[in-house]
Amino acid sequence: MIEKDREFLQAYLQDRRNLVEEALQEYLAGLAGEREDIYRAIHYSVFAGGKRIRPILCLAAVDALGGNLAVAMPVACALEFIHTYSLIHDDLPAMDDDDLRRGKPTSHKVFGEALAILAGDGLLTEAFVLLSRAEKIMLPAQKRLNIIHEIAYAAGVSGMVGGQVLDILCEKIAPDENILSEIHRRKTGALIVASLNAASIICGATKSRKSALSDYGLNVGMAFQIADDILNVTGDSLLLGKETGSDAARGKMTYPSVLGIEEAKRKLHQHVEEAIGSLADFDERARPLRLIARYIEERQK
Amino acid sequence: MIEKDREFLQAYLQDRRNLVEEALQEYLAGLAGEREDIYRAIHYSVFAGGKRIRPILCLAAVDALGGNLAVAMPVACALEFIHTYSLIHDDLPAMDDDDLRRGKPTSHKVFGEALAILAGDGLLTEAFVLLSRAEKIMLPAQKRLNIIHEIAYAAGVSGMVGGQVLDILCEKIAPDENILSEIHRRKTGALIVASLNAASIICGATKSRKSALSDYGLNVGMAFQIADDILNVTGDSLLLGKETGSDAARGKMTYPSVLGIEEAKRKLHQHVEEAIGSLADFDERARPLRLIARYIEERQK
Repeated sequence: MIEKDREFLQAYLQDRRNLVEEALQEYLAGLAGEREDIYRAIHYSVFAGGKRIRPILCLAAVDALGGNLAVAMPVACALEFIHTYSLIHDDLPAMDDDDLRRGKPTSHKVFGEALAILAGDGLLTEAFVLLSRAEKIMLPAQKRLNIIHEIAYAAGVSGMVGGQVLDILCEKIAPDENILSEIHRRKTGALIVASLNAASIICGATKSRKSALSDYGLNVGMAFQIADDILNVTGDSLLLGKETGSDAARGKMTYPSVLGIEEAKRKLHQHVEEAIGSLADFDERARPLRLIARYIEERQK
Repeated sequence: MIEKDREFLQAYLQDRRNLVEEALQEYLAGLAGEREDIYRAIHYSVFAGGKRIRPILCLAAVDALGGNLAVAMPVACALEFIHTYSLIHDDLPAMDDDDLRRGKPTSHKVFGEALAILAGDGLLTEAFVLLSRAEKIMLPAQKRLNIIHEIAYAAGVSGMVGGQVLDILCEKIAPDENILSEIHRRKTGALIVASLNAASIICGATKSRKSALSDYGLNVGMAFQIADDILNVTGDSLLLGKETGSDAARGKMTYPSVLGIEEAKRKLHQHVEEAIGSLADFDERARPLRLIARYIEERQK
C-alpha cells in the first residue's frame, strides 16, 4: 500500500471508530440506570479495545453506496453489540477458556462467570432493542425488519452460533480445509456479510450492488480470519496484545496448521484480490472498502 | 373453581398447548438441517415439558381481543424460545447450578456446558429470526417492529437479564420484599407482560384495553411466582417433578421466607383478584384469561 493510501485509510478508520464509539457510549448510557454490575460488565467488554471492524465495514459500505451514516449508526452499533457478546461467551471457561483478550482480562475473569454469561445475553438482546427502537431519523419499518432478519439469521444457529458449535466439536477431529472454511464462514463470515447486507438494505442498493458487497464481505471475512491465524504463528505478541503460538499449543485447527504458512498466505492474498475485484463497478466512494481489504494483508496486529 | 370452569379451562389449555407445540415443531424443523448437536440440544429443552404459559397467555389475549390466532403464532413461539433460553442459562453451574428441571436433567447435564450455553444463545437469537421473518399471513411491518421492541426490551437488561442479575446478587443480602418483587417483576413478570402487550399490538387494541391486559399480565406474573414459591414449601415433589424445600435449603429469598406462608398466600390471592378485576371491561371471550388467573391459586404443580 502506498503512503498516501495508508494515511487516508488510517484517518478514515480513526474517524469512523470515533463516530462508532461516541454512538456506542450514547446507546450504553441508556442502560446506565440499571443495576450497576451488569452495566459495568457490558461497558467493560464493549470498550475493551475492539477494532470496530463490523460497524466500520457497514458504514464504509453506506459510504460506497452514497447513503446516510446517521441512519446506519444504530445498525452499526447493534453489530458491535452482537460481536462483543460472542467474544464474551467464546472466552468462557466452558468454551475457549481464555483469560486475556487484546491484553485485557476477559469478562469472566473480572466479573465472574455468572455476570459474564448475563452480560453476553444482555448485549445480544439489547442489539435487538436498538434495531427495533424508534429513532429520530427513521428507516421505513420494512427495511428495519429486513435488517433485523439479516442480522438475527447471521448470528443464529445457521451462522455464528452454529459456527461456534462446529469450532468446539472439531477440536477432536482431523484437520480438514472444508470444515475449517465452514467454521469461519459461519463463525465470523456470516456477521461480516450481514454488516454489508445491512448497508445495502439501508441504502436500497440494486441487486447487483448488494451481491457485489456481499461477495466483498465473504472474502474480507475469510481474509481477516486467515490473517488472524497467520499472525498467531508469526506475529509480534506485544503488538497483538495476546500471546502468539497459542493456537498451535492448543492443537487448534487453523489455516497455517492445515495448509502451511505459505499456502495460507497465498489464500489470504487470493481472498483480498477477490474482495477488491467484486467492487469493480463501484466508484471512488468505495476507496475505504478497497483499502480495508488491502490492509488486512499488511496488518501486523 | 367450579367443575364446569375447570373442564373448560383444561380443554382450552390442552388445545392451545397442542397448537403451540405443533408450531414449535414446525419452526424448529427449519433448524434441523444444521449441526445435529445444537439442534438436538435446542429441541430437548424446548420439549422438556414446559407449560407454555407465555404463548398461551399471548393467544388467550388474542382470543379476548377477537384477533387471529394464526397471525400470533410466530410471536407466541418466539416468547417460548426466549423463555426456554432463560431457563437453560439460569440452570448453568455458574448460575443456579440445577441438575434437574421438571424432573428431567438440565441441558448442561445432557449436552455439556458449552452446548448448553450455545443452545441458549441460539434460541434467543432464533426468536428474533422468527419475529422478523416473512410469514404467509403478514402483520404490517410497523406492528412487527413494535412487537420485536416490546419483547427485546422485556428480555433485556431492563427486564429478564437485569432480574437474573439481581437474583444472583441478592443471595448475599438481607430479605426484603421490595427487592424480591423487583426481581420477579423483571425476571418473570416482564416477559409475561410482553406476551400480553404483543397480543394488544397484533390486534390493534385500544389504549385502555392494552393497559388492562398489561395490568393483568403484571398481576398474573407476580401470582405465578408467589404460587411457585409456596409450592416449593408445601407442594408435592412427585407432582412438581422437582424437589420441594430446595429454596429454603439454598437460603433463597422467596415470598414464604420473606412474608411467611399465610401472608404469601394472601398476597397471591390479592394478585389473582387484581388480575381478574383488570379484565372487567372484557366480554366472555376473556373467560380463558380469567380462569387462568383463578387456576394459579389452585394449582398443585
